[in-house]
Amino acid sequence: MGNKHDENSEKREIGVGLLGLGTVGSEVARVLVEDAEELAARVGAKLVLRGVAVRKLDAPRGVCEHLVDPALLTTDAAELVARDDVDVVVELIGGINPAKDLIRQALRAGKSVVSANKALFAAHSAKLFEAAQKAKVDLFFEAAVAGAIPVIRPLRQSLAGDRITTVAGIVNGTTNFILSAMDSKGDDYDKVLREAQELGYAEADPTADVGGHDAAAKTAIMASIAFHTRVTADDVHVEGITDIAAADVESAKQLGYTIKLLSMSERVTGGDGHERVSARVYPALVPRSHPLASVNGAYNAVVVEAVNAGRLMFYGQGAGGAPTASSVAGDLVAAARNLVLGRAVASESTYAKLPIAPISDVAARYFVRIRVDDRPGVLASVAAVFAKRDVSIATVLQKGLPRDGGHDASGGSDASAQSESAADGASGGAEIIIITHSALGGALSETVREVEGHPAVVEVESVLRLEFEND
Amino acid sequence: MGNKHDENSEKREIGVGLLGLGTVGSEVARVLVEDAEELAARVGAKLVLRGVAVRKLDAPRGVCEHLVDPALLTTDAAELVARDDVDVVVELIGGINPAKDLIRQALRAGKSVVSANKALFAAHSAKLFEAAQKAKVDLFFEAAVAGAIPVIRPLRQSLAGDRITTVAGIVNGTTNFILSAMDSKGDDYDKVLREAQELGYAEADPTADVGGHDAAAKTAIMASIAFHTRVTADDVHVEGITDIAAADVESAKQLGYTIKLLSMSERVTGGDGHERVSARVYPALVPRSHPLASVNGAYNAVVVEAVNAGRLMFYGQGAGGAPTASSVAGDLVAAARNLVLGRAVASESTYAKLPIAPISDVAARYFVRIRVDDRPGVLASVAAVFAKRDVSIATVLQKGLPRDGGHDASGGSDASAQSESAADGASGGAEIIIITHSALGGALSETVREVEGHPAVVEVESVLRLEFEND
Repeated sequence: MGNKHDENSEKREIGVGLLGLGTVGSEVARVLVEDAEELAARVGAKLVLRGVAVRKLDAPRGVCEHLVDPALLTTDAAELVARDDVDVVVELIGGINPAKDLIRQALRAGKSVVSANKALFAAHSAKLFEAAQKAKVDLFFEAAVAGAIPVIRPLRQSLAGDRITTVAGIVNGTTNFILSAMDSKGDDYDKVLREAQELGYAEADPTADVGGHDAAAKTAIMASIAFHTRVTADDVHVEGITDIAAADVESAKQLGYTIKLLSMSERVTGGDGHERVSARVYPALVPRSHPLASVNGAYNAVVVEAVNAGRLMFYGQGAGGAPTASSVAGDLVAAARNLVLGRAVASESTYAKLPIAPISDVAARYFVRIRVDDRPGVLASVAAVFAKRDVSIATVLQKGLPRDGGHDASGGSDASAQSESAADGASGGAEIIIITHSALGGALSETVREVEGHPAVVEVESVLRLEFEND
Repeated sequence: MGNKHDENSEKREIGVGLLGLGTVGSEVARVLVEDAEELAARVGAKLVLRGVAVRKLDAPRGVCEHLVDPALLTTDAAELVARDDVDVVVELIGGINPAKDLIRQALRAGKSVVSANKALFAAHSAKLFEAAQKAKVDLFFEAAVAGAIPVIRPLRQSLAGDRITTVAGIVNGTTNFILSAMDSKGDDYDKVLREAQELGYAEADPTADVGGHDAAAKTAIMASIAFHTRVTADDVHVEGITDIAAADVESAKQLGYTIKLLSMSERVTGGDGHERVSARVYPALVPRSHPLASVNGAYNAVVVEAVNAGRLMFYGQGAGGAPTASSVAGDLVAAARNLVLGRAVASESTYAKLPIAPISDVAARYFVRIRVDDRPGVLASVAAVFAKRDVSIATVLQKGLPRDGGHDASGGSDASAQSESAADGASGGAEIIIITHSALGGALSETVREVEGHPAVVEVESVLRLEFEND
């Protein structure tokens, strides 16, 4: 294993300071120790772990129990970052503070930085890049998005000569696990969430994942790079999956769709002819034939569309210690090579400075599930509300609801719903599912508000978008 | 569109010399002209097309008819390469000569080079990298493999901290179009090839594609990078698709497989415990559930497996003017940025210098289609030949062959074939299809040779490998 490489490459050393020894940090430490010889051959210098900043010195160390010399552990992260023999700082603490201050301190001291911190880069990348550029050092964060899957580097480098129009992805493993299980088993959200928590796929407090915030941070990072524009997590429209009902998943299935939490970033042109960036995260219906529909469980995938390249897809493990460590180690090798060659320069490309499109200005197709009284004429008068707002209906599915609460589909139609047809044969009320043609978010919201006030409507139970299917 | 970027970025110019104005060259020229403003903002300098070397000055120019100033055209490529105001040479002539000499001339003159030339890089990358490293310039060739799909950069950079074990892919659009059509329509190879030629998916002389040589060149390039070892096209074991019969495709389908021309590069450990690289191109049966099975038509996909990252897949358009131009333009932006920042350094990583494993030492599962006489006891005695060579049988499918030459499946079995069961009910002879467990190429060849000499065997019609399904 790599024993024939140039002996000179072993002479120089690059010191690594590791901040954090959790799931990912432990795997990075393992890679640095176990693959030391190969990494040295690839970098042209030995990568030497100088120290590891941890919260508690005596916590159990998992894969690193016998790999990392306990003498390397320290609780003083700032002191580790400042050490003269540390050339690259690998930040795997996560969260905004103290990670931000430690990274800025490292950059100011002329050290290259590798990080997997999505929250930080989705909020403060501008300041960090400023510091890195000033110090002429590298600042890499491939692991912040989609775990092992190379996404940042292809967007930033491989597609630098093309014009990206869309970046769409499944970038949160927890919600994808939950939605995949709801789809395959027909179970309720709450039940599947509990199972995911028991299996370790969801945290005890799952808010960041199921609320869409983790995906929003990753979306901000991808949109910034794809569109050469600063996009922060606050610019991303976010809806989580907590309101998705088993009935939504079932109806979507009947109509040929599956529900996925999507990260969507698009270049859109407004009514004024100016380009904007639309960045959003929400659960949406995806046609089962679309490549993203078959991305199941903890896997992630990112689809990129560009004018010349056409559609590209990147697929792999989006989380977990070893996969994320693979990305971190790739960045570490890149930063170390650049130090050996004396050529490191971080650069952020935000020249385009496109404005963010408000969600109300973004057109989408919608899935609307409405509970109605079971009497003649309801569908026609509900459809009339849609027509009044110029929201055109593509498909209607009606279901009688028996008193036991189950679903009893009475037929789907791909035609316009303007013809009269009441939900029939059920005594527990009825359900109307409408799929619209493309409509602006604003017009749809107004339509839904008016439908909610309709005397025969019990409740608008779900409003979800439908992606990847043209009108 | 990109009108707010730093005005200073427009002041410096990077001169581009384009060699070749065919399908890809025309699209690159179009991108340079149409997207000039955005590219300038990304590079930090204007990319200016200084000249285009063509064979004939008066040929029709397609997309470039009104975009490229005819005064830029020249038939003297060497003169263009030598010009003082050309900083980056983009070689899109293809083939070994004169491309090789022109690139070496450019590198020696201190110019960075971007190329899409798979044949050249599969044969002579060592010499070219030597020249580039000496001159401290960049040498990029992302477009040589898989068109628009970023493959080289992820292998070289993103996975530089991981240990790649397998690179498997569908990297030739022509053969994938032909095999996809044979699978969906049941047609013969010859008929589908003619259709592909009429549609422009196959060339008048399709040898390089259908013989597997184009895929072999790409395989050599990917294997070199993935395993840090020089692998040339001559090191790749190549089998083409010209002998694939409609009957193979049909039997594969019945058993749950589809036939694909695969590029396979693997890190294998020999009996001596030493690692080797196995690089091969051949048509193989792929389970329909594998992601590569659903890569159809002119699309390409590359699956990479690495110790920490797990399985990654990259998917997109593998050929065509605009997709390939996207990759070329990405490399061009990278090379130009490096010139602006004064940091270009080409590097080849071949420290591992792993030996190449001969195909006879590589284990695989096999699909063997045998035409036999229709009489009792044949299957048992054929199976005995396999058993004698320790080639274990996993599945047997028998078919009676009516005199009209069609196929009449009489059943599949997932059990061992040691039990007696003659092909029945047909008067045109019979066919036995055997899927083996994993066997060494050497043992399988000997088995096939002996089966061919069996008195009841009319002919061994096909021997194909089966990939991605463990025993």
